[in-house]
Amino acid sequence: MTIMPPDLSIFESLESEVRSYCRDWPTVFDRAHGTHLVDEDGHRYLDFFAGAGSLNYGHNNPVLKRALLDYLERDGVTHGLDMATTAKRAFLETFQRLVLRPRDLPYKVMFPGPTGTNAVESALKLARKVKGREAVVSFTNAFHGMSLGSLAVTGNAFKRAGAGIPLVHGTPMPFDNYFDGTVPDFLWFERLLQDQGSGLDKPAAVIVETVQGEGGINVARPEWLRALKELCERQDMLLIVDDIQMGCGRTGAFFSFEEAGITPDIVTVSKSISGYGLPMSLCLFRPELDVWEPGEHNGTFRGNNPAFVTATAALHMYWTDDQMEKHTRARGEQVGQALLALCDESGAEEARCRGRGLVWGLEFSRAQRASEVCRRAFELGLLLETSGTRSEVVKLLPPLTISADETDEGLRTLARAVRDTG
Amino acid sequence: MTIMPPDLSIFESLESEVRSYCRDWPTVFDRAHGTHLVDEDGHRYLDFFAGAGSLNYGHNNPVLKRALLDYLERDGVTHGLDMATTAKRAFLETFQRLVLRPRDLPYKVMFPGPTGTNAVESALKLARKVKGREAVVSFTNAFHGMSLGSLAVTGNAFKRAGAGIPLVHGTPMPFDNYFDGTVPDFLWFERLLQDQGSGLDKPAAVIVETVQGEGGINVARPEWLRALKELCERQDMLLIVDDIQMGCGRTGAFFSFEEAGITPDIVTVSKSISGYGLPMSLCLFRPELDVWEPGEHNGTFRGNNPAFVTATAALHMYWTDDQMEKHTRARGEQVGQALLALCDESGAEEARCRGRGLVWGLEFSRAQRASEVCRRAFELGLLLETSGTRSEVVKLLPPLTISADETDEGLRTLARAVRDTG
Amino acid sequence: MTIMPPDLSIFESLESEVRSYCRDWPTVFDRAHGTHLVDEDGHRYLDFFAGAGSLNYGHNNPVLKRALLDYLERDGVTHGLDMATTAKRAFLETFQRLVLRPRDLPYKVMFPGPTGTNAVESALKLARKVKGREAVVSFTNAFHGMSLGSLAVTGNAFKRAGAGIPLVHGTPMPFDNYFDGTVPDFLWFERLLQDQGSGLDKPAAVIVETVQGEGGINVARPEWLRALKELCERQDMLLIVDDIQMGCGRTGAFFSFEEAGITPDIVTVSKSISGYGLPMSLCLFRPELDVWEPGEHNGTFRGNNPAFVTATAALHMYWTDDQMEKHTRARGEQVGQALLALCDESGAEEARCRGRGLVWGLEFSRAQRASEVCRRAFELGLLLETSGTRSEVVKLLPPLTISADETDEGLRTLARAVRDTG
Amino acid sequence: MTIMPPDLSIFESLESEVRSYCRDWPTVFDRAHGTHLVDEDGHRYLDFFAGAGSLNYGHNNPVLKRALLDYLERDGVTHGLDMATTAKRAFLETFQRLVLRPRDLPYKVMFPGPTGTNAVESALKLARKVKGREAVVSFTNAFHGMSLGSLAVTGNAFKRAGAGIPLVHGTPMPFDNYFDGTVPDFLWFERLLQDQGSGLDKPAAVIVETVQGEGGINVARPEWLRALKELCERQDMLLIVDDIQMGCGRTGAFFSFEEAGITPDIVTVSKSISGYGLPMSLCLFRPELDVWEPGEHNGTFRGNNPAFVTATAALHMYWTDDQMEKHTRARGEQVGQALLALCDESGAEEARCRGRGLVWGLEFSRAQRASEVCRRAFELGLLLETSGTRSEVVKLLPPLTISADETDEGLRTLARAVRDTG
Repeated sequence: MTIMPPDLSIFESLESEVRSYCRDWPTVFDRAHGTHLVDEDGHRYLDFFAGAGSLNYGHNNPVLKRALLDYLERDGVTHGLDMATTAKRAFLETFQRLVLRPRDLPYKVMFPGPTGTNAVESALKLARKVKGREAVVSFTNAFHGMSLGSLAVTGNAFKRAGAGIPLVHGTPMPFDNYFDGTVPDFLWFERLLQDQGSGLDKPAAVIVETVQGEGGINVARPEWLRALKELCERQDMLLIVDDIQMGCGRTGAFFSFEEAGITPDIVTVSKSISGYGLPMSLCLFRPELDVWEPGEHNGTFRGNNPAFVTATAALHMYWTDDQMEKHTRARGEQVGQALLALCDESGAEEARCRGRGLVWGLEFSRAQRASEVCRRAFELGLLLETSGTRSEVVKLLPPLTISADETDEGLRTLARAVRDTG
Repeated sequence: MTIMPPDLSIFESLESEVRSYCRDWPTVFDRAHGTHLVDEDGHRYLDFFAGAGSLNYGHNNPVLKRALLDYLERDGVTHGLDMATTAKRAFLETFQRLVLRPRDLPYKVMFPGPTGTNAVESALKLARKVKGREAVVSFTNAFHGMSLGSLAVTGNAFKRAGAGIPLVHGTPMPFDNYFDGTVPDFLWFERLLQDQGSGLDKPAAVIVETVQGEGGINVARPEWLRALKELCERQDMLLIVDDIQMGCGRTGAFFSFEEAGITPDIVTVSKSISGYGLPMSLCLFRPELDVWEPGEHNGTFRGNNPAFVTATAALHMYWTDDQMEKHTRARGEQVGQALLALCDESGAEEARCRGRGLVWGLEFSRAQRASEVCRRAFELGLLLETSGTRSEVVKLLPPLTISADETDEGLRTLARAVRDTG
Repeated sequence: MTIMPPDLSIFESLESEVRSYCRDWPTVFDRAHGTHLVDEDGHRYLDFFAGAGSLNYGHNNPVLKRALLDYLERDGVTHGLDMATTAKRAFLETFQRLVLRPRDLPYKVMFPGPTGTNAVESALKLARKVKGREAVVSFTNAFHGMSLGSLAVTGNAFKRAGAGIPLVHGTPMPFDNYFDGTVPDFLWFERLLQDQGSGLDKPAAVIVETVQGEGGINVARPEWLRALKELCERQDMLLIVDDIQMGCGRTGAFFSFEEAGITPDIVTVSKSISGYGLPMSLCLFRPELDVWEPGEHNGTFRGNNPAFVTATAALHMYWTDDQMEKHTRARGEQVGQALLALCDESGAEEARCRGRGLVWGLEFSRAQRASEVCRRAFELGLLLETSGTRSEVVKLLPPLTISADETDEGLRTLARAVRDTG
Repeated sequence: MTIMPPDLSIFESLESEVRSYCRDWPTVFDRAHGTHLVDEDGHRYLDFFAGAGSLNYGHNNPVLKRALLDYLERDGVTHGLDMATTAKRAFLETFQRLVLRPRDLPYKVMFPGPTGTNAVESALKLARKVKGREAVVSFTNAFHGMSLGSLAVTGNAFKRAGAGIPLVHGTPMPFDNYFDGTVPDFLWFERLLQDQGSGLDKPAAVIVETVQGEGGINVARPEWLRALKELCERQDMLLIVDDIQMGCGRTGAFFSFEEAGITPDIVTVSKSISGYGLPMSLCLFRPELDVWEPGEHNGTFRGNNPAFVTATAALHMYWTDDQMEKHTRARGEQVGQALLALCDESGAEEARCRGRGLVWGLEFSRAQRASEVCRRAFELGLLLETSGTRSEVVKLLPPLTISADETDEGLRTLARAVRDTG
């Protein structure tokens, strides 16, 4: 479509080799609105990626944008650490009224710094402090972040190797369905806990994603999550649900664990909590766990007040009734049916699909094909990324606010990309 | 001043006990401009704190604000991960042209996530990967962040204890002047390195702040920094300067290490880099160290494009000539002279002052008095925090853009607070 | 039996609370011969314990004793570190001729210090050095020793807790039959290794006992050991067989892994290698693994020459033909049949037995009964100890040189002790 | 001297490359008596090495030998774990009566396994358990053993690298005189402890040798040891004296710390405690530290009864009066004077000597010369080894029972070796 190639030279010469997305999508994006990104040459891209789950309400959502502009224009406090501010108070009150109370969640709220990995680090610290133990159990193909504490409970061997030191104190257990149903749930985990000679040091906590996004769109069943919660209670371990990518409505309900009817001990929230793609995260926990001393964990950007403003606006806009949840489920079903049809078409050997709410994965038996599909989709104007350890899964993560037509358009482009790479 | 007490109830009931600043400054801030914060009752506070160094150009700087509003209004990309965007390109080009090139700094630029601790974690990972060693040397009273990698090279025992696991792979060495000049610089460190029987595992890197902000405003002399750089070269260790708080002009020059005439191997930058208090950080390193694989380190909010916009505007506004640097030095001298007078007045036994550029500390021999001074200053409308392990130092960190009159006003209020607590 | 209670006062007042066997067997032993210990009051005890596997050829075996006395009398070198001595040369030549060559084992021989845990520490060091990785896989209910390296791959929670630091770099996998045959062998282990997102850091080595003595007499099947060896080869991990308790003929063949037809990469040997209960241990490994630098691992008592003398004599006495192996198997069958009968008698619910060669376990469903049986057996003049994490297993480990009659006598005493505690 | 070269082929072909002493002393030793070793060709070597400190009473001391032969001949228990035996009781009673009581030492006695590193591992475990902290401080050029716990507090970089994993939880501090008296004792250590921001995690214990044998014969002054003990008390850290090489009379008194008048909290003893070169070790500690659970630390060869027999005989023979101590001091002075003369002769630049009791070091400025001296001494019939990280020190460690004439003979041979290598 372009005549002139995009000017990517400064990225190639100045930015570190660690950069990644700009390699897969070789264009220069300029603006964005709703479900679309637009590059500097005016090409529009339908976004089935949503900032890796940070843009559940779409790009530059107009309601949130208005609140943000108003706040900035009136010189509201921008950077607040954990000073009390009117913006923070409004967020806390709204979060309590619209999120915690209706769900009977008794949580205290901690602002651990504005990124997901800050929240995970604080959750692990707190669990270890409360229980006085070092060990934490995570699951195969888990992803929890890139700072050392979070990385130690992350599964990906490539990312772990980047640590430069041995990552210790974490032990992986099989995620739901890791053996395709041939082994009873938690057989191994529970036996290790019961057996005083197993060699597993008693864990302070278990950290889990209800749907593993980076790990390949692996969906835990509600009954598995319930059994995990019960196991944690029986064995005096804290259950941490990392809801950074799957919370804020991605699976339908505000929290992804609601469907299972469980109340985790600690919950990490980030990505879409600000609603506008602004850095913000929370660590929630049962009040009896609030053993922190003042300032024992902190961080410079833990009071990103513009994010509090858009977060508050997003809660008001989308979480006073169940419209958002219904819309998400409807779009999810639309996606699921299309993917099933696509799998049937391509033959059972070649592709499998799975998902929940509005997060879906299309796994190819020939792993490389997933990357080919994403590359072709980009050429066709659709943003999609892969996930899974071997990048074998095409991940569908559109904004929750996507319309039925846009969803259909994206699915048709995907189908074409699949065919074109067959 | 207020008739009604501020409504802090939601903070007290819902927010975690970990909160800290809202305890010292029991009011609800609402808006801010330049060197002032204003609470919801309209009380104005002169800010000698500057977001812990994140607001070097003042609150809601109008030039940066205009650029930010324009960008948001035109629906510029908000959340970009490491996609190429026009806002990121503008930042990279400007940073290269106005910061790196004029200083002959050959660095590659990495966006490691938007917080300082993300930058430190990436710096440590990189150093360990490059050198294939685990050990890192830090200094007494260092502060580098709260995620596990950064915390392991942080000195504060209270914050370290929060880790819940033993923090390993770091060894502290004495910071400049730790023994009041009675011991030759690096005597201990160099001897340990030379002695193959010392028990110090050869470090991959040394991480240092040129002025320790959290540690009590401890200022390293240029000759000490030069000797450290030479030691690192002789011993094949990488030198990481953590310029998160002291960079972006705080000490006068853009980077705090410029005065010493050294070129660190790796530099971390955050806090004031966005200029507007928005989360952003950088990890800079010599190009031959850029051994990262694509995506080996990442983070959801590493492409906080609104921050790139204000960062670019700040560089254009303040770093095309040497006016900002001169202004900072002038204000610094003004502060320094006033503090010296204050120390003389209070008696040499009771208070000592030290600083560089526009970061100053006033240390009291009776540690508790520093907190009393800050409390009294707050009542008098001046925001000041303590630093040092025993909170024995009053830290002066006003915006660099402060006027001579505002500086004078703040210093007079401080003097009064000192007298009132005598 | 005694009129005067034994004088144990010095043990109770001066020796540490860590002492254990003297609590279960409250008498003062004085001398020993063959399968019997005799206390200072002249009471004889039949020994079904054999120094926890260190006395396979009985107490003070007369042939070994003669060699030892001759050596001491003629002032042979006692303490030799790793100086070349005639006693060491004789041992090495004999070990090569009678043990390694006939079994086609290509091993280099290392003297890592005289205890089993020294051997395990050296084996782990070597495996990590060769592979350049830190992780090691061990098995549920493994026991490898009490120094920190060995303890980290030991399963027992009580013993692990004694470390006082978190034990890291080890991950337990299920030992053979851990799930009573309901789960395919190595399902979990192999999947973790194949899955680059599993979170298991690639191990340098796997360490295994063919029969877990301390862990409760858990017997690995030959086919399981073979599959483990194949898995190690496929996945580039070294296989370490810890043959400290089960080697030197305990299971019939000299090495316990011979029956499975495998050649481990590294083998640790100790306990009965000296044949006389004298401290001695070996670490054997394939020659291509011999990457040690001179003195990189050492130990003051690695050249316990009197032990070399008895070790050489024992090899000459018992390992020039297959008589010892046949005798061991015969006695093992005798024990096995008696235990089966005992289990039948007591009801399947109450007791189960298992074993291989001349190591057998009798497990009681009411764990406490195993201790009661051992206590009663002691009263009846039979030495037996428990094993298993809950001390639920009576362990039968008589000298291999025991006669059929003595075996029968011990089994009858055991049967009486079982009945007496029913 | 020999016509036929010694037959070392089996050592070269079968023993691991890790072997070391047999490389420096290329002959095959056969027998030994008093201060002499004899090789299989009948060549006699005067021993200034004494089994690295394990043969303080000489080789095959006739009094001990008689006790040992009697015990073995009468079939005394050889291998006893921690069963009560008559031999163990005799040792405990004798040790209490002749060693602990006369010195007013209140210690409990633990048998942690028969090697020095077993004792150190148990001491570190106990200290960590008692204090509930992980960190331990050791000293530059310390040597405490080769299992992972001991190795982590050992200084030698070459030996540390053999661990294959990062060695953590230990921090080195400067040993006495590390800066040739230019820095006040414990300046750095005490400051780190007092400064809550230093980054040194509060140690559970400090482990020290009073004279560093492997580290290069570095002698701590009594006042330095006293100051260390006081520092430990002030800072609630346990003081562990590793007396494995320097105890049992090596420095004159039975324990090397007696001269300083301190009572360490924990003491490790091994090497010469059995008196005959037989593996044995002890861990001694104040009774209030005896928080071990039964069996929490154990080891197969912790009850090496023949060693108890010779240990008891040695105590009776040498420690009922002060003759041994006087003799040691006299020989030490003889050695010291000779070394001083040798240093004067060779010029101050080239050699320095130091020592205490009967352990002395002769350090050469050209490090390689120390090895040359030892090689030449071997040719001249004198056994000497080097120590120090660069093997720059010739270590003189003759049996304490050496006569004045033998001492003189060895010193003359040494002087000749020094001259021959000049």
